[in-house]
Amino acid sequence: MVAGDRTKNSARIPAAGRDLVDSLVIANRILFDHDVVDAFGHISVRHDRGPTKFLMSRHLAPGLVTAKDIVTFDLEANAVANSAQRYYSERFIHSEIYKRRPDVVAIVHCHAPPLIPFGATRTKLQPIYHMSAFLGAGTPVFDIREAAGMTDMLIRTPALGAALAETLADKPLVLMRGHGATMVGNGISQVVYRAIYARLNASLQMDALKLGTPIYLAREEAEKAAASIDGSLERAWNLWVDAARAKMKSRQA
Amino acid sequence: MVAGDRTKNSARIPAAGRDLVDSLVIANRILFDHDVVDAFGHISVRHDRGPTKFLMSRHLAPGLVTAKDIVTFDLEANAVANSAQRYYSERFIHSEIYKRRPDVVAIVHCHAPPLIPFGATRTKLQPIYHMSAFLGAGTPVFDIREAAGMTDMLIRTPALGAALAETLADKPLVLMRGHGATMVGNGISQVVYRAIYARLNASLQMDALKLGTPIYLAREEAEKAAASIDGSLERAWNLWVDAARAKMKSRQA
Amino acid sequence: MVAGDRTKNSARIPAAGRDLVDSLVIANRILFDHDVVDAFGHISVRHDRGPTKFLMSRHLAPGLVTAKDIVTFDLEANAVANSAQRYYSERFIHSEIYKRRPDVVAIVHCHAPPLIPFGATRTKLQPIYHMSAFLGAGTPVFDIREAAGMTDMLIRTPALGAALAETLADKPLVLMRGHGATMVGNGISQVVYRAIYARLNASLQMDALKLGTPIYLAREEAEKAAASIDGSLERAWNLWVDAARAKMKSRQA
Amino acid sequence: MVAGDRTKNSARIPAAGRDLVDSLVIANRILFDHDVVDAFGHISVRHDRGPTKFLMSRHLAPGLVTAKDIVTFDLEANAVANSAQRYYSERFIHSEIYKRRPDVVAIVHCHAPPLIPFGATRTKLQPIYHMSAFLGAGTPVFDIREAAGMTDMLIRTPALGAALAETLADKPLVLMRGHGATMVGNGISQVVYRAIYARLNASLQMDALKLGTPIYLAREEAEKAAASIDGSLERAWNLWVDAARAKMKSRQA
Repeated sequence: MVAGDRTKNSARIPAAGRDLVDSLVIANRILFDHDVVDAFGHISVRHDRGPTKFLMSRHLAPGLVTAKDIVTFDLEANAVANSAQRYYSERFIHSEIYKRRPDVVAIVHCHAPPLIPFGATRTKLQPIYHMSAFLGAGTPVFDIREAAGMTDMLIRTPALGAALAETLADKPLVLMRGHGATMVGNGISQVVYRAIYARLNASLQMDALKLGTPIYLAREEAEKAAASIDGSLERAWNLWVDAARAKMKSRQA
Repeated sequence: MVAGDRTKNSARIPAAGRDLVDSLVIANRILFDHDVVDAFGHISVRHDRGPTKFLMSRHLAPGLVTAKDIVTFDLEANAVANSAQRYYSERFIHSEIYKRRPDVVAIVHCHAPPLIPFGATRTKLQPIYHMSAFLGAGTPVFDIREAAGMTDMLIRTPALGAALAETLADKPLVLMRGHGATMVGNGISQVVYRAIYARLNASLQMDALKLGTPIYLAREEAEKAAASIDGSLERAWNLWVDAARAKMKSRQA
Repeated sequence: MVAGDRTKNSARIPAAGRDLVDSLVIANRILFDHDVVDAFGHISVRHDRGPTKFLMSRHLAPGLVTAKDIVTFDLEANAVANSAQRYYSERFIHSEIYKRRPDVVAIVHCHAPPLIPFGATRTKLQPIYHMSAFLGAGTPVFDIREAAGMTDMLIRTPALGAALAETLADKPLVLMRGHGATMVGNGISQVVYRAIYARLNASLQMDALKLGTPIYLAREEAEKAAASIDGSLERAWNLWVDAARAKMKSRQA
Repeated sequence: MVAGDRTKNSARIPAAGRDLVDSLVIANRILFDHDVVDAFGHISVRHDRGPTKFLMSRHLAPGLVTAKDIVTFDLEANAVANSAQRYYSERFIHSEIYKRRPDVVAIVHCHAPPLIPFGATRTKLQPIYHMSAFLGAGTPVFDIREAAGMTDMLIRTPALGAALAETLADKPLVLMRGHGATMVGNGISQVVYRAIYARLNASLQMDALKLGTPIYLAREEAEKAAASIDGSLERAWNLWVDAARAKMKSRQA
């Protein structure tokens, strides 16, 4: 089965619900179809039967992930079910955020192109319309150089994961200088939504900055709009799932 | 049937012609295929058997709308035929414009990305070529903050719809700060055309502004060109329908 | 047959060779697939059995054109074979250029988006790389206002076509303020090539102008490179035909 | 067989391994699918059974290349196996680099649009994120005018190939003013990766320059990140091959 366990202590790890695994798989495809991830980047979800575990693909391009590739990790980023030969080297992004943010149920790490210039120039990413209102809560920038000097830019250790999580703090997103961004959400659909619209907001904000001084959403507008949009996530999720399934089906045909 | 009525007083509401419903469905798909709408945004058409009713999808992504999802609303934005569990919260955009603009037969509300910077910076959207000549009639900007202070940015009430309609006045389009835009037309093909080319004009105008000071169409040129283009709408509509149908068909295969 | 004649004097008009008609049809599709034309724009070719005739589709979106839609026109832009109910109102662009340019065998008129800002701002379109070297021969801008005052921007008459042809002179391309562009070539593959790479050059030149002062091809480089590229047109044409045919086939499946 | 030899001295030239030819074919398609090449541009790989030979397609658009089109060349750019009627005129780019760079196993020459502005303006292409860290090793610009005065911009001779190779020196990439770029790698997957991410870096750097003064990767960060990424090339390659194969399959269906 999906979360079939090949590890020694598998008996103690409950299998993830099939629905959760299926949602994680389709979320991988959706992020690829929307140019949030390319061959790189990843999405995880906290286990539905225990908050100290999370699910994420083995080392694989998101566009190729299927149910059999989903591994269960503990909060030290060790595989505890359906272990594989290789994992994402940056799985500590996920484990360290889950440790510190009990409200977070799903995480996306990506190198979505439009977000890169904001990490590189420190122009503050701000909500230009209601669709990306969640950005109003803050968009801190993490510079790995301040945490660890000269590195290969990757979050390869628990310590680097912790430093990133500290910069993220209670915000929905953290930009990473010379690298990408990490978004968090209260579930798969919310974090996918945030990844897609953070990317779009970045494009629009760059366009608007060329036209003049943009009027961003006021803090109160952003709070109210973010809450409203959360009530319509399902409308977007249903569309994305439909398109991703159609694409997967046409590939199999 | 398509507009089969499930409401108590359905006997008094004539069913919408099948052709009109079909056109509205295909228009939903066309707007999605041309990146005017994504999971959000909507299009309505005034009822062909009574000007005090209009047709619009239930709460659903436009890319997924089918004939069975089309609801009939009255001008208070109440469903009067083929009612559903949930409606677009911003249906008052439509009802209040239909009330005030007897010339308007179809309305699009969208968050098309290139239009957002114009609402945010107040750079005036102007016709850069004959294809978008209709913009020469005026492109006012609605700021919900002036009408209602701090909100979630959405046109959730008749009063907000009325305020938006007042800003639109007799123009073909109104930009909405931090939100999107709303276009009106004398039929489905005209409003779809206006939505597609307003979006394209926004992109081109941003490009031109980087090159220098654009020469926009003169008022008289714009009037004449807009009238001319209206005589060729069918050429575009036929292409869009053909492409949307082919896409729907390949999805079903 | 393809160029079957339904007009009175059809006996005197030789039918266009099937190959030429097929090439013209596929060129329509290629221009659409490469975003040179959308629902609007057109391509013509001089008749292969008489230089005083040319072939062009009836009033139809290029993406929908088939062999049965190809009409034969004389140099007054009158249909003389396979006449239809409606023609492109701007067919005088073609007739007047064919009159004045015996070297021209094919013509494209389009509103390709990246070219619009160059017509609107008068920033000179110049060859930024060898692929668009033909632009080095000159890229004049036609402003219809200088020829005819306030118009609907369209080349609706022989006189306007003549004025445009005068501005084009012996150049490969003429930009049209607030409207689009017209390219000419010594055959279908050359004019399609020129349309595709004029569009691409426009994008790249806008990008380069944001980075600094571009070094354009010198006149002599441009002449030599244009001649070289002409020797490899077939490589591109074969690719484009292959892709367009595959798309047409998948639509019929 | 694939590298079946039709030349006189074929007995002395070992046939290229089928896997290498297959990889080269799929790499041609991948570069086309990722807009690195269009109808023009080419990729070669050093022969796996002799460093003084290399494999490259005959004169053909990369999107159409199949195994039977792969020709074996010697380091004078003469065809020595599976000869054809016509070759890329710029095959000297490949032969002269292979001569001087024993570490180079694969080469891409392209006109990828986002790279053109960097060659034309001399704005230095620099790594804006870890994905394109290899650019930190240097991105020299070759101006053919300095080597040979007024030309058709093409590397048509061994001498021009040698001049280009001299400018490339020990770097991973050389930009070519008014023309394009050439990337080298230690194998097909690395050079394809470098071509795709050089193109993407160019886009992102242009965006970032509009926002402010970008912080590029430090030299040490770039070295470390480039080494790290090389350890994950297979993840990207597998995705690209999967997508290219699916596209080829759907074309045959």
